[in-house]
Amino acid sequence: MGRELTVALVGATGVVGAEFLKCMEERNFPVGELRLLATSRSAGRQLEFRGELLTVRETTHDAFDGADIAFISASTAASKELCPAARERGAIAFDDSSAFRQEPDVPLVVPEINPEDLRDHHGIIATPNCSTVPLALTLAPLMRERGIVRVIADTYQSASGAGGAATVELHEQNAALAAGEEVVVAEHPRQLAFNAIPQIDVFLDDGYTKEEWKMQVESRKILHQPDLALSATCVRIPTEVSHAIAVHAEFDRPLSVAEACALWEHQAGLTVIDGRAPGAYPTPLDATGVDDVFVGRLRQDASHPNGLAWWCVADNLRKGAALNMVQMVEWMLNDGCL
Amino acid sequence: MGRELTVALVGATGVVGAEFLKCMEERNFPVGELRLLATSRSAGRQLEFRGELLTVRETTHDAFDGADIAFISASTAASKELCPAARERGAIAFDDSSAFRQEPDVPLVVPEINPEDLRDHHGIIATPNCSTVPLALTLAPLMRERGIVRVIADTYQSASGAGGAATVELHEQNAALAAGEEVVVAEHPRQLAFNAIPQIDVFLDDGYTKEEWKMQVESRKILHQPDLALSATCVRIPTEVSHAIAVHAEFDRPLSVAEACALWEHQAGLTVIDGRAPGAYPTPLDATGVDDVFVGRLRQDASHPNGLAWWCVADNLRKGAALNMVQMVEWMLNDGCL
Repeated sequence: MGRELTVALVGATGVVGAEFLKCMEERNFPVGELRLLATSRSAGRQLEFRGELLTVRETTHDAFDGADIAFISASTAASKELCPAARERGAIAFDDSSAFRQEPDVPLVVPEINPEDLRDHHGIIATPNCSTVPLALTLAPLMRERGIVRVIADTYQSASGAGGAATVELHEQNAALAAGEEVVVAEHPRQLAFNAIPQIDVFLDDGYTKEEWKMQVESRKILHQPDLALSATCVRIPTEVSHAIAVHAEFDRPLSVAEACALWEHQAGLTVIDGRAPGAYPTPLDATGVDDVFVGRLRQDASHPNGLAWWCVADNLRKGAALNMVQMVEWMLNDGCL
Repeated sequence: MGRELTVALVGATGVVGAEFLKCMEERNFPVGELRLLATSRSAGRQLEFRGELLTVRETTHDAFDGADIAFISASTAASKELCPAARERGAIAFDDSSAFRQEPDVPLVVPEINPEDLRDHHGIIATPNCSTVPLALTLAPLMRERGIVRVIADTYQSASGAGGAATVELHEQNAALAAGEEVVVAEHPRQLAFNAIPQIDVFLDDGYTKEEWKMQVESRKILHQPDLALSATCVRIPTEVSHAIAVHAEFDRPLSVAEACALWEHQAGLTVIDGRAPGAYPTPLDATGVDDVFVGRLRQDASHPNGLAWWCVADNLRKGAALNMVQMVEWMLNDGCL
């Protein structure tokens, strides 16, 4: 990997942008030139990367000229404009939004699961929704041994999944409540402090939210299971970082706890913490700032003879976004397809 | 209901005890004499009931002499001693703990579902676990029209379910984090502030927690479905009051959203908030301090043709405990079996 890449980072000042900088530093990612891009509001800010202060510029199409890759973590509307623009200027666009994930010619990849899909890109590559990554990574190794009949996934998602302003709002709401002041609600659809909000993204006609639909259709695409039966309820809870999921999976024949655990132990990117003792399970705080997806609370599902139930947690900004995108590029460099 | 009852309230100074006082006042519950009982630590404290200050006494067996009923909201160990003691002294013991719920001669009742079970008591009557009540109350009306094949229930439970000290600990942890101070963990198995803890009560040999097992066996008993297939994951989240549940139920034949909604609309104790628009669903904050169980987010379950998915919320201290017990007595007085 002697090659050094010219990297455009769109959304550099956001919560995922900050994680990109950390991940690229920690992993000694082969960046030659790094262009930090954001909205005009954030232009002029300075961010540190490898001990050097870099100035954030406003995102323009010209900024992609000569770039090898563009990491794009912005709104879906922005991605719809910027991904094709980056591609036209010769960069491969790695997109964090849902804008292109369901396009047939756009790979949707978790590198530990379906990296080969990266070879068939047409200039735009998508990273999955931040809750889909941990779910898919716990399902994938089990699916190599058993057919999956049905998956139920109920999530416990953090404020940062809605962005930096939504995270600040949670802290401000907590402070207002502690001070006996009025709570301001602007970023989340309801007060998040001391509450749980069963709505992430907009509602669809069938009563599911778009976040729940994403978990279904994105899992199908990543796992190459176009008919996978999957139902999710996505809930925002008052945590800052990391998303957790309670999973109930039904297989085509029994799979024991010991077999599932052994499959997980051999799965890259997954750490099992499953002690059946007080505290011996992963929580959002454990996953925050850590690369791996954590899984625990594994048990035979009491409601079905072929069922297993578990709990998984991952840093939504890291493995749920920035890290997963960095790992895609690493795989492609190693593979030679980039 | 001209009769006035002599009521012993054990656990009067606890979070559920406070809710008993509120419920009895609000509902004009026929209390003649009210004996407030607690541990020796709390003896001497004064609590207001109907504008009068009453002094809390230490719980002794003598305190049940001449009482018609005893509401007991204490530890399971305390209930094991005090329920038989109250019965021996001639009072009917209404117990909030899990000590007697599975005894065959102890009614386990949600008055809107199985009130007739109250007639067959032998001096001890149990109220269900605070998460079981809302789950059972949303299942019951649907079960009158369809057989239930399987239920998945993942919970979002508040700190107050672990008691007053656990609630205070959450606030103290939030304050410590805001001040940059060290977080103290004593009441919950892990830090609860900005976290989610997938453990409530102790672990059983099969990997489920006792809270999860309670939801299964108590739902079976209340719904008179001894073989009901039910799997739960019970999770503590940083809320203060009210428990929420994401439910996925599979029936023996299809049940439409419209049919389910109509059945719920006619169910006493249940309020449907199901608007499919931002904010148009119940949250823990909506349920807090309110009698009814709230249900919303109803949709055909995408993972099974005979499935429905929904979300329900209830005040764990009120319908999940004190109110349900007060309602049991009201039903019995009206029925003439008390």
